[in-house]
Order: sequence, then structure tokens, then C-alpha cells
Amino acid sequence: MEKSRVEAFSDGVLAIAITILVLELKVPAGADGHLGRELLHEWPSYVGYAVSFTLIGIIWVNHHALFKDLATVDRPMLFFNLLLLFFVVLIPFPTELVATYVDSPADGDIAVALYSAVMLGMAMSFLLCFLWSHNRGLFRLPLSQAGFRSSLLRILVGVVIYSFAIGLAFVDARLTLAFHGVVAVFYLIDQSTAHEEATRLTRANEATREEGTS
Amino acid sequence: MEKSRVEAFSDGVLAIAITILVLELKVPAGADGHLGRELLHEWPSYVGYAVSFTLIGIIWVNHHALFKDLATVDRPMLFFNLLLLFFVVLIPFPTELVATYVDSPADGDIAVALYSAVMLGMAMSFLLCFLWSHNRGLFRLPLSQAGFRSSLLRILVGVVIYSFAIGLAFVDARLTLAFHGVVAVFYLIDQSTAHEEATRLTRANEATREEGTS
Amino acid sequence: MEKSRVEAFSDGVLAIAITILVLELKVPAGADGHLGRELLHEWPSYVGYAVSFTLIGIIWVNHHALFKDLATVDRPMLFFNLLLLFFVVLIPFPTELVATYVDSPADGDIAVALYSAVMLGMAMSFLLCFLWSHNRGLFRLPLSQAGFRSSLLRILVGVVIYSFAIGLAFVDARLTLAFHGVVAVFYLIDQSTAHEEATRLTRANEATREEGTS
Amino acid sequence: MEKSRVEAFSDGVLAIAITILVLELKVPAGADGHLGRELLHEWPSYVGYAVSFTLIGIIWVNHHALFKDLATVDRPMLFFNLLLLFFVVLIPFPTELVATYVDSPADGDIAVALYSAVMLGMAMSFLLCFLWSHNRGLFRLPLSQAGFRSSLLRILVGVVIYSFAIGLAFVDARLTLAFHGVVAVFYLIDQSTAHEEATRLTRANEATREEGTS
Repeated sequence: MEKSRVEAFSDGVLAIAITILVLELKVPAGADGHLGRELLHEWPSYVGYAVSFTLIGIIWVNHHALFKDLATVDRPMLFFNLLLLFFVVLIPFPTELVATYVDSPADGDIAVALYSAVMLGMAMSFLLCFLWSHNRGLFRLPLSQAGFRSSLLRILVGVVIYSFAIGLAFVDARLTLAFHGVVAVFYLIDQSTAHEEATRLTRANEATREEGTS
Repeated sequence: MEKSRVEAFSDGVLAIAITILVLELKVPAGADGHLGRELLHEWPSYVGYAVSFTLIGIIWVNHHALFKDLATVDRPMLFFNLLLLFFVVLIPFPTELVATYVDSPADGDIAVALYSAVMLGMAMSFLLCFLWSHNRGLFRLPLSQAGFRSSLLRILVGVVIYSFAIGLAFVDARLTLAFHGVVAVFYLIDQSTAHEEATRLTRANEATREEGTS
Repeated sequence: MEKSRVEAFSDGVLAIAITILVLELKVPAGADGHLGRELLHEWPSYVGYAVSFTLIGIIWVNHHALFKDLATVDRPMLFFNLLLLFFVVLIPFPTELVATYVDSPADGDIAVALYSAVMLGMAMSFLLCFLWSHNRGLFRLPLSQAGFRSSLLRILVGVVIYSFAIGLAFVDARLTLAFHGVVAVFYLIDQSTAHEEATRLTRANEATREEGTS
Repeated sequence: MEKSRVEAFSDGVLAIAITILVLELKVPAGADGHLGRELLHEWPSYVGYAVSFTLIGIIWVNHHALFKDLATVDRPMLFFNLLLLFFVVLIPFPTELVATYVDSPADGDIAVALYSAVMLGMAMSFLLCFLWSHNRGLFRLPLSQAGFRSSLLRILVGVVIYSFAIGLAFVDARLTLAFHGVVAVFYLIDQSTAHEEATRLTRANEATREEGTS
């Protein structure tokens, strides 16, 4: 039950964070017959909305997947989860920063670097949640050595990607935003295949266990 | 359980999207004794609020009805559901666009066309969710051929209606907004009767199954 | 299960509507050493926040109490519930209207009349939900004649109070706001006693039924 | 069931209050090549966000812990809970006040004093919830004399701390903000150890009870 309330609270926070991204989309004030052009001019807002929406969606799926496998949640885990939510809730801010400044030659680098840094903070918090769950034995089924290493690797890849993006922002802000988009799409595809594999492994596991019991 | 968390997350997002519609209603700044007139002047805001509220409400009812019939949810379905939420979360933006520009002879067409396009995106995502659920056998009870065709038809009607509305926007923006209102009211009425029928069918089905079991 | 998802959605909407009331509280821009005075000057915002918060809280308690007694929810009830939420979600708008204009001799009447009208719309939607539940036999235990009449009376009192408030707004806007505050406090007190009585009745009922069964 | 809906509603409100804190973070308008400096200049916003986020997170953990131990919720408890939410929902407002004025020599004191006052209101509402639950016997397991006193003491410490902070605000606004940060970190650490102890006690209790039953 404790676990389910943590999930409900996290779902609430993730649902709100993903929804208030729309508040960043601004209606042009006096379009005066050029509404189409004015709207096109705000393309970084739409890219920011789409990338951040996708990333929060992926976080939700990952969060969902992690918590589904936990048997229980201890107090420190509550706070690691809060740390993760801390970065998720922040996302609309750097998203608006990017929407406003990605096109500026002088300020685009800092805007996109901050965006990447918030994503890095999120990835590192997720790493903490995962490692804590593993070390404290919160998982319902202890992870196999191979399962632990493959999950860890996937999370560490995120940490490396977002660290790299911070540096890349100072080379080319727009390219870095595109890079975030590519990463998001890659995660979307990867998630689906990863899951198929996980399902297969779980079923194999359960079959083995059932054989053991009978 | 997986399904229930998807429902909870979707309910959260739908609840927030429907609620932040109110943020689009702006209090006139210096009414100076003409508050009534100033408020009347903002009629497109109220129409936009009412139409978008009704449409999100209908989406919620449809989402509810679809998920109630699912036995489980797979990973790709999570992402089709996210795509649906992507368009739902967008709704407050074109709603504000319409509220600001529907009365403008020069910009009303683009504003209302975009509003219609977001609704089209939503209808098409719902179509994807439905087709995926059907093809992957996620339904608890497989749909009968007739049930599948009638559900599909209803969703396709939405796709056609919103495609038509995109074109209509360039003929008359205000008329198109009124058209959206009529569609919303039509859906409200249709939903109630559709459900009565569905309930009757379900009961007939269950009666048949129970006979089969006993 | 259908019922629980309606409750979850309604709880979400009510929770968001009650929380975004805070967005109406504006931080004074350049206080320049007079922050205290500037804040005091915005007293209608705080009164509006407190009254609307209390009213949404009371609606939540009433909604909670009504749905707890329902065995099921049909499709029309979904839409009556949406109508109720339509008015609840509106509340932050007339609240801000009141906060901005209650002190204006020329515009205060319209602002407070609209506030009262939204409350009236809410009370009437609740009446619809209650009558529909009763007439369609959605209650788990059919209401006694006395129970029905006393519940109906309580809801009708709200309808009368808010109709009266619309008229009163044109006599004195500030007085009407104070009147809303008094009504809210009265409801708070009434709720507690009403519940004690309801609990007593329920227990008596259950005792009778148990005697009947054994 | 009644209890679970109170928890769901409270979780919703807490989730929204914690998430809309981000709306207080403002993107600088025309950075003109000095975005880094402009962002650094808004440090009070980030401190405010971090402190308020942590405090709402702690409230959520405490709320969670209190309700987990309740067997049921009566009507007055609903309203004490609403009072607690009243102050939680307010938090984004004094947070923005602090973000805007903590650096102002003339207005910082009032801003930070109000922030502290809202926290005091919250602590006192929590005290009310706790005392009411204890006096009305709403706990599943009656608290031991020692357990009651230690919980009471912890809540009273919060009341004293925030009362002290109101006074401290008039001595040094920035110091008081730092003090709130220290208190938040202290609570984070304290929570973890407190929980370990509570778990040990609960287990000891349950062991004793099980011995008694067998």
C-alpha cells in the first residue's frame, strides 16, 4: 500500500509536469494578418514542447517499470524519488528557456546547456533510485547479475548522453536541441524492443520457478 | 495493475488539461465601469472554454470506455496512449489561439484551422489506440465483426469531421467554431444512446456466455 | 470500477481547481519599501482565495458523500458530473474577477453577480446529479422518503442562497462577498453535524438489516 | 474506502502544489548575451523553489505516514485536512514573494515573515490533524504514551521553529531563508532515522501481538 501511494503521487506530479508544458506555448499578441508567420517563428517552442513531452513520457514509462518490480519502498527511497521528481518538475523551466533563446547566437548555448543539465540531474536521480532499490533488496525478484548489468548500462548511457549534450550545447545550441530530439526518438524505439525482451525473460524466469516449485 | 496505472496517469493528464482551460479566461484590466461590456466582448473565450471542455470530457469518456474493455496494455500501447495525451495536452493552446483570433478577418482562419488540426491529431491517435488494441488482442473479450466495424466507423467519422473542419476554417472561422460546438453536442447525445446499446449488447453477451458455462 | 474512475477523475479536477486558485494571488511588482501596505491593499484576493477554497472543499466533501452511496454510474450521470465539474473548473475565473473588481463602485456588482452565478450553476448541477441518481436507482441503498426530502432540501437551500446572492450583488458587492464567506462557514459547521446524524442513521439501518438477516 | 479517497485528493493537491512551484521561475526577457548573469541574478527563485519543493515533499511524507496509521477518517478530520491543504496550496505565493523581495533591504523582512507564517499555519494544521486523530481514536493501533509524546514533540518543534523564523525575518531576511533551507535538510535526515526507529518499533509491536495471539 505504501508503494501504491508513492506511485500515485509520482503519477500525479508527472501528469502535471507533462501537462503544464503547454503553458509555455504563447499566443502571438498582435498578429495583424500574419498569424501563420508569427506562429512559424516560434518553432523552438513546439520543438521544446515535443521533446520535453516525449522525455517526461519516457520517464513515466521507466518509473512505472521500476516501481512495478519493487516489493516495497523504504523512507530513503521516498526521498530519492522526490529528487527525481525535483528534476522532472523543473523541466518546463529550461524548456521555456530553450524556446526563448535557442535561436540567439549569444545566449543559446547556456539555455540548451541548462536544459541538458536538468536532464542529467534526472538521469542521475533515476540511477540513485535504481541502485538503492538493488542494494537494499527492494525488488520483488532479485535481479540476475546479467539483468542488473544491462539495466545499469542503459541508465549510465543516459548519464553519458546528457553529459555530452552539456558540452555540445557550447558548440551548437540548435544541433544540441536536435540531438535531444533524436535521443528521445531512440529511447521510444528502444523501450519497445527492451520490453519485448524483458517480457520474454520474465516468462522464462517464471517458467523456471514454477518448475522448481512443482 | 499495469493497466490501472496507465488509466491513473491518463486521468491525471486529462483532469489537468480540462482544468487549465480556465487559465485562458482573462480578467479585463481596466474595466472602468464597463465590465459587463468588456466581458461580453470576450465571448470567443467562453465559447472556446465550453467547446474544449466538452471535447476533453468526451475524450475522457471514450478513453474510459476503451480501457475498461482492455485486459492488458503493452509497451507500444503506452506510447500510442502518450500520443493521444500529446494532443489532449495541446488543446489549451489552440483554444487560446481561437479565443484571441476567431473574430479577426485576417487571422481567424489559421487559428481555427489549427484548432481543428489538433482535434484531428487526437482523433487519429485514438484510432491508433483502438486498432492496436484490436490487432494485438488486448481486449478482454474479442470484438465481434459487427462491434469492431461499428466502433471503427464512429472513430473514422471523427477523423472525417475534423478534416472537414480544417477546410471549413478557411471559408468561415466563426462558422467552424460553431460547427465544433454542434459536433460536441452531437457527441454528447450520441454517447448516451451508444452506451445504452452497448450495455444491452454486453448483457446479452454475458447471458449467452453464462448459458454456455452452465 | 467504472465508479472509481469517475471518482478519481473528479478528485483530480477538484484538486487542480482548488490548487490553481493560488495563481490568482499576485505578487506586487515594485513595492519599494511598502510591501506590507501593498499586500494589505490586495485583501479581496485573499478573501476570494479563502472563500473559493472553502467552497471547492465543501463541494469535494459533498461529491465524496454522494458517490460513496452510489452503487454504479451510468452514462448520463457521467455527463451531469462533467457539468458539475464545468462550473467547478470555472471558479478560479470569477474569483479573480471578484479579487480585481469587488472594490470598484462601478464594476463590483457584475463581478460578484457572476461569482454567485457560477456557484448557482454548480449547485444546480449537483441537484441534477442527485435527482438523476435517485430517479435511476443508482444508490446502493434506496433513500428513505425522509432521507430523500432532507437531502433535496439541503441542495435546494444552496440554489436559493446563490440566486439570492446574484440579486444582492447589485445592492452591495462587498456585502455579497461577505455573505458568501458566511455561507461557506455555515456549510462547514452544518456538514459536521449532518454527518454525525447520517452516521447514526446508517448504523441504525445496518443494525436493522443485520437483525433481518440473522 | 473513505480514507483512500481523502488520501487520493490530498495526494493530488500536494502533487499540484509541488509542481506549480516551477511557474514561479521566470525566463529573463531580453538577456542580450548575458543570459548566464541574468539567471544567476535570480538566485532567490531557485532557493525558493528548492526549499518549498523540499518542504512540500516532507509534508507529503508526513501526511502519508499519518494517514497510513489511521483506521478511518471522520467528517471534522476532512476539514482539518482541508485546512492543512489550504496552507500547502498557498505555498507558491509566499515562495514567489520571497523570490521577488528577499534581496530588498526594505521589503525582504515582510516577504520572509509571511513565508514563515504560512509554514507555521501548515505546522499548526498538522498538529490539529494529529491531535484530533489521537483524541477521537482514529488510529488503527492506539499510540503508546511514549509514541504519542514523541510524535507530539516532533510536531511542536516545527511550530516553535516557524514561530522563531517569523521573528528572525525582521532581523535578517536572507539568513531566515537560509534557516528554512537548513530546517528542510534537517527534516530530510531526521525523517530517515525516525523511520528506521518506527519500523523497529512496529516490528517489535507486531511480534509481541503475534506472541499474544498464538
